[in-house]
Amino acid sequence: MKLIFQKSDLISGINIVMKAVSSKTTMSILECILIDATEGKIQFVANDMELGIETGVKGEIIEAGSIAIDAKIFSEIVRKLPDSDVVFEVYDETKANITCENAKFNILVKSADDFSNLPTIVKKDKITISEYSLREIIKQTAFTINEANKNKVLTGELFEVKGDQLKVVALDEFRIAIRNIQLKEEYGNFKVLVPGKSLNEISKILTGDMEDEVNIYFTGNHILFEFGDTKVVSRLIESSNYFDTDKMISSDYKTKIDINKKELTECIDRATLLIKEGDRKPVFFTMKDTELELSINTFIGSMNEVIPVSKEGSDMMISFNPKFIIDILRVLENEQVSLYFTNPKAPCFIRDEENSYIYVVLPVVQ
Amino acid sequence: MKLIFQKSDLISGINIVMKAVSSKTTMSILECILIDATEGKIQFVANDMELGIETGVKGEIIEAGSIAIDAKIFSEIVRKLPDSDVVFEVYDETKANITCENAKFNILVKSADDFSNLPTIVKKDKITISEYSLREIIKQTAFTINEANKNKVLTGELFEVKGDQLKVVALDEFRIAIRNIQLKEEYGNFKVLVPGKSLNEISKILTGDMEDEVNIYFTGNHILFEFGDTKVVSRLIESSNYFDTDKMISSDYKTKIDINKKELTECIDRATLLIKEGDRKPVFFTMKDTELELSINTFIGSMNEVIPVSKEGSDMMISFNPKFIIDILRVLENEQVSLYFTNPKAPCFIRDEENSYIYVVLPVVQ
Repeated sequence: MKLIFQKSDLISGINIVMKAVSSKTTMSILECILIDATEGKIQFVANDMELGIETGVKGEIIEAGSIAIDAKIFSEIVRKLPDSDVVFEVYDETKANITCENAKFNILVKSADDFSNLPTIVKKDKITISEYSLREIIKQTAFTINEANKNKVLTGELFEVKGDQLKVVALDEFRIAIRNIQLKEEYGNFKVLVPGKSLNEISKILTGDMEDEVNIYFTGNHILFEFGDTKVVSRLIESSNYFDTDKMISSDYKTKIDINKKELTECIDRATLLIKEGDRKPVFFTMKDTELELSINTFIGSMNEVIPVSKEGSDMMISFNPKFIIDILRVLENEQVSLYFTNPKAPCFIRDEENSYIYVVLPVVQ
Repeated sequence: MKLIFQKSDLISGINIVMKAVSSKTTMSILECILIDATEGKIQFVANDMELGIETGVKGEIIEAGSIAIDAKIFSEIVRKLPDSDVVFEVYDETKANITCENAKFNILVKSADDFSNLPTIVKKDKITISEYSLREIIKQTAFTINEANKNKVLTGELFEVKGDQLKVVALDEFRIAIRNIQLKEEYGNFKVLVPGKSLNEISKILTGDMEDEVNIYFTGNHILFEFGDTKVVSRLIESSNYFDTDKMISSDYKTKIDINKKELTECIDRATLLIKEGDRKPVFFTMKDTELELSINTFIGSMNEVIPVSKEGSDMMISFNPKFIIDILRVLENEQVSLYFTNPKAPCFIRDEENSYIYVVLPVVQ
């Protein structure tokens, strides 16, 4: 087996599949990248048994073959090579020479037979969206997920397709994030629960271009994302007892404020300074006439600040864990945001007119 | 007490004195900055009893006074304020209001009486060098120092003045770094041992300008650096039994090579990839005719690379801990460097013709 790559192509390929290389495992084959050049093209594959990624890599095949190589060592070596052609040559089936200009590395490789291939996906239920939309959806919902949550259902995001509508939901014990996306076609009805961890890794690979499309295939056990030269397969989480979030959403409100997102973010950011780690002090929102006063009082000191708002409905005072509000403001692109309140003990809603995004946050009840 | 600052002036002042704020202490006064506006100007002071810094800060004194404030909280609050005028007002002698646009913080402050002032330095023995030179000297020597070394003498750098010559020495068990600097005047003869930690903090404050000068004052117990509006005082380390490095230096050699610094650095960097943490594999230098071959062989694999050199003297093979060579190459500005060898068990010297810098590195003896 002998291949020649441009260093930059090699790095792009490694960067993509590295997202599915296991870092905590006792099975050394899960720490490997499969380099497969048996079918007239070069494919890199990694698979940690939760998430699997396969991508095409540009290069010249001098002699066909297929081996597995430790991903971390391979990646580190390639990164430190001069910017030039890299020759990758396997001999004795157990050793590889990596040569670039005057530098020559020799490291051990494993048989491709030991490598776990990606599961085969039956391509039936499918939707198509842009890379941009998929990346935005993940950014705007996945922050609510704690990957280490013991309640497995809370580590996943619901992808629910109804005709030409895609609804994505993520939540934890205190908040819900929902994105509603209009699709270009009717695709049927199906829903799956995708691990948040897989979505976070995928969003790092997506270019985020409006023009580039992602085909997403849904099966009972897996979800497959196909874009460019890359395929990403993730296992699913059992979703039969997922929450009925429709019941938790209401469009009634007593008070609505429109506020500049940047001003509100910076103000909450300042208030947060006075909270020591582990301390659970809330930030008070006092809405009166055309002003929102934010205030906080902790062991360190106190702070208050007034922001002009456009208000509809009655005056109100309510308090929040500032992190929950900040997390939402950080992922929104809008210049102005609208907050809806019913009473100091009821959830606050942050949403746009079209409900393309809906966030629900529980207040701190004193 | 009432002062008005521009946010940017406040941040510059805080950044300077923060270097002398203790982070590991049970004495909360050592975590404070003294803000002193009693003598018609505003001074910020911090003092962790090892290192003390005093700097002038631009601002308007509406009402004179002096208090101490928790450095970390003060710094965090100021950083998050809008870019505007900051009003700092103390009332009841225990509380300060920090106001900027609509944001108003209220935090506790301490009495200035509890603050430990900087020691008074008798200005007798003195030298003057540029900020640029001092910063370069520290960068090129301090990397050999392990601040946690149990041998106190090894945590310091020798500053030795002989007439118009300054010699700075830092060393550990395996290497020596020496800088010789020609001063502009004759200053007498004196030497002190300065904690490496103090020097590292000072180098972060120095602007590094060629035109700006630093006056350095030497006493039996302290060293004082004066530059711009800032004074830095450090305690000294007992130096009476410091090493006689002159005895360790020799200008004899059997082999000398001149080599491109960037090529050598990148090549050693690549070889280092194959060394796992805790593993002590050396890199072999094989000098033959006009080539240097670097090679390494570890549990991970092997690597070798040939670099063209200009060689004087006999062929030689010697091995080093690669980190020791890399550390030196990283702090040198020169495009070409010269390495001098005597035999595989004797130290290697990296120095320029004028001995303005001299590095001594012990080889790994197999």
